Amino acid sequence: MSTAVMTSVNLHAMGAAAQAAGRRLAVLNTEQKNAALQQIAAELEAQSATVIAANVQDIQEGRAKGLSDALLDRLLLTDARMAALAADTRKVAELPDPVGAEMEGKMLPNGLRISKRRIPIGVLGVIYEARPNVTIDIATLALKTGNAAILRGGSETLRSNIALVQVIHAALDKAGLPAAAVQYIDDPDRGLVSELLKLDEYVDMIIPRGGAGLHRLCKEQATMPVITGGIGICHLYVDVSADQARALDVIENAKVQRPSVCNALDTVLVNRAVAPEFVPRLARRMAENRVEMRATPDVLALLGETDYGTPISVAGPEDFDTEWMSLILGVKLVDTLDEAVDHIQAHSLNHSDGILTNDLANAMRFVNAVNSSAVFVNASTRFNDGGQFGLGAEVAVSTQKLHARGPMGLEELTTYKWVAIGNFHIRQ
Amino acid sequence: MSTAVMTSVNLHAMGAAAQAAGRRLAVLNTEQKNAALQQIAAELEAQSATVIAANVQDIQEGRAKGLSDALLDRLLLTDARMAALAADTRKVAELPDPVGAEMEGKMLPNGLRISKRRIPIGVLGVIYEARPNVTIDIATLALKTGNAAILRGGSETLRSNIALVQVIHAALDKAGLPAAAVQYIDDPDRGLVSELLKLDEYVDMIIPRGGAGLHRLCKEQATMPVITGGIGICHLYVDVSADQARALDVIENAKVQRPSVCNALDTVLVNRAVAPEFVPRLARRMAENRVEMRATPDVLALLGETDYGTPISVAGPEDFDTEWMSLILGVKLVDTLDEAVDHIQAHSLNHSDGILTNDLANAMRFVNAVNSSAVFVNASTRFNDGGQFGLGAEVAVSTQKLHARGPMGLEELTTYKWVAIGNFHIRQ
Repeated sequence: MSTAVMTSVNLHAMGAAAQAAGRRLAVLNTEQKNAALQQIAAELEAQSATVIAANVQDIQEGRAKGLSDALLDRLLLTDARMAALAADTRKVAELPDPVGAEMEGKMLPNGLRISKRRIPIGVLGVIYEARPNVTIDIATLALKTGNAAILRGGSETLRSNIALVQVIHAALDKAGLPAAAVQYIDDPDRGLVSELLKLDEYVDMIIPRGGAGLHRLCKEQATMPVITGGIGICHLYVDVSADQARALDVIENAKVQRPSVCNALDTVLVNRAVAPEFVPRLARRMAENRVEMRATPDVLALLGETDYGTPISVAGPEDFDTEWMSLILGVKLVDTLDEAVDHIQAHSLNHSDGILTNDLANAMRFVNAVNSSAVFVNASTRFNDGGQFGLGAEVAVSTQKLHARGPMGLEELTTYKWVAIGNFHIRQ
Repeated sequence: MSTAVMTSVNLHAMGAAAQAAGRRLAVLNTEQKNAALQQIAAELEAQSATVIAANVQDIQEGRAKGLSDALLDRLLLTDARMAALAADTRKVAELPDPVGAEMEGKMLPNGLRISKRRIPIGVLGVIYEARPNVTIDIATLALKTGNAAILRGGSETLRSNIALVQVIHAALDKAGLPAAAVQYIDDPDRGLVSELLKLDEYVDMIIPRGGAGLHRLCKEQATMPVITGGIGICHLYVDVSADQARALDVIENAKVQRPSVCNALDTVLVNRAVAPEFVPRLARRMAENRVEMRATPDVLALLGETDYGTPISVAGPEDFDTEWMSLILGVKLVDTLDEAVDHIQAHSLNHSDGILTNDLANAMRFVNAVNSSAVFVNASTRFNDGGQFGLGAEVAVSTQKLHARGPMGLEELTTYKWVAIGNFHIRQ
């Protein structure tokens, strides 16, 4: 298998080692796992200068390659950021451990006692882009839940990631745990990603953290389950009964508070009955926030010749299928709630969609019909987030249907087994 | 997409119709879904003769092709079997509906109320082998859970399956539901299976019900999640402290009660300390049941020259990786519980594995270390079954890690969405 790729990396061997390590991690108790996490935090502090030195090289190379200042800032590790990574690791140690919980238990009529017990998934394959802090995030969340991890980060921070994994290995060694619990694919050969995606003999789940292309690649090539998500075309529907002033506050928050993330608002759907009043108010509010609007012609007709101080143009054919990631908002009029639902079902990526209304029947109808990972009534789409939902950690935001939807915390890095305890029970 | 296959079947159109139908099913209440199920039961009775006439043709063709009598019996539909299908359908109507349940709910510190609500998965793709009753099983379980289904059955019962789907369509029509809720790929072209496996735009989950080759094909080709399972190499480990007489009862039950199914026993591991006493007793008990043994040489040494009345031979290199599906049992001695666990981890397919012991510490150690879909202590592996576990129905037995493990009932045909209800909440 590994011979298909010309590289020093032997993924087959890495997979086997990860599986063996995962089996050791699976039987650790919470104290043992937390001790390893505390070691990682301590090593992050002790080896901070070494990691930063590696990061300096990545940054220099990135600058030479002409990476943007914004991207370089995302790649940068500083004393403060290293300290934050150590602090985050200690926070993971403090989180409750989901492994071992009995999810349900019952006694069958024949006296056989059965229960569903939470266990680690086994080996996680994580493919991510530039930011080096993901290396520590994922490694610590995997360890906490008794999973081994095979990591593949972006080439822009290869040296930083290798240095961080060395930190983890030093800590695992001190904690008496196998280094193979966290392994890093340190060869930038892209063929290795394809090879990793076929390693279902050892790797139980793939988590891609990156753009649509990476997710598509994983879905098409992976022979094991893939958690897709992290990409959203998010909608808010302004119903006839919505409190317009407060609806504008929610829309502003969803669009403006952090426009570059997946739960930021992309499209506002406005019921035609309230559009003559609402649309000009929306245009003014968006202009105040320097949000450009891409709207259906009937929206522009309502706005007339007035200069609202921000570009407002007719939406192109792709605009309602675009995740803006910036200060642009799609606006469309709909005749009915059902038309809003139809638009959302056709254009949403099942991330975060909501209704702004004071009509209970409409709220229920919307919530029943829209099956996005999170459906909001009178709240900002920005709440679809592990931290906001109180999960304590966020591995990813899943928009697919199986295993986990919406923000994935520690529980979503576990699966379960049935445990059946009998008294030499035989089946009749 | 569909142009790649020369066929009258347009899978793209089928997928779009299934998705639209699934959205209608998703908002039905339980009474509406049950009414449709009762219609199906009534139509199965009313159209029994028509279905049987189609089945007669399938059986005649199968006989002409030289199918075995055992297989032909599996394909056969009789008055009694049609009546049983109607009765089974009424039982599905009586099962509790998992859709709509709130799995958990809480109020966030900011007053935003969030909950996880159970919803249908959407569109299920089910690929199965010969038995025509699966058509009704899957269609009714999908309908009950508000899912649309695209079915692809074995070519041996094509006419029977088409007749059964016509029954379902007549019932759906009477219930006022779209025929596209249950669609059947009625062209035996194998290319259509590959095409179905790429239809992730519409199909949310693939359930293969068949042999290892079909499961492998689905894992390799599918771009959506696949529920693999239904194949097991099942182990029982006889610990030093096991009650030997009762252990033999469990082993006999696990091996003999229904040897052709996936939760039947394949390999017995015996602790060397009790082997001199236990192995001859095992050989006698297996001989009484005409079970052939394939054993490690040390087992044969213990049995000596005695004729136990059944073939006992040295296990070949593949024997401990074979799902026997017949009256054959692998037997191996191990020095320790850990060696038993190692063997199971190396050879099990994560279906059903167990320990026979009276040692509490060993039982706990085994249960912690073995992460098969069901782990048994002093009970037959034959209990890993939806009916036995009280799930009311069984869609499949999953041996993969994500979404569902072990017997899948109605709940496992659902997913969830987060519902967040606020008072114009904005994120700080």
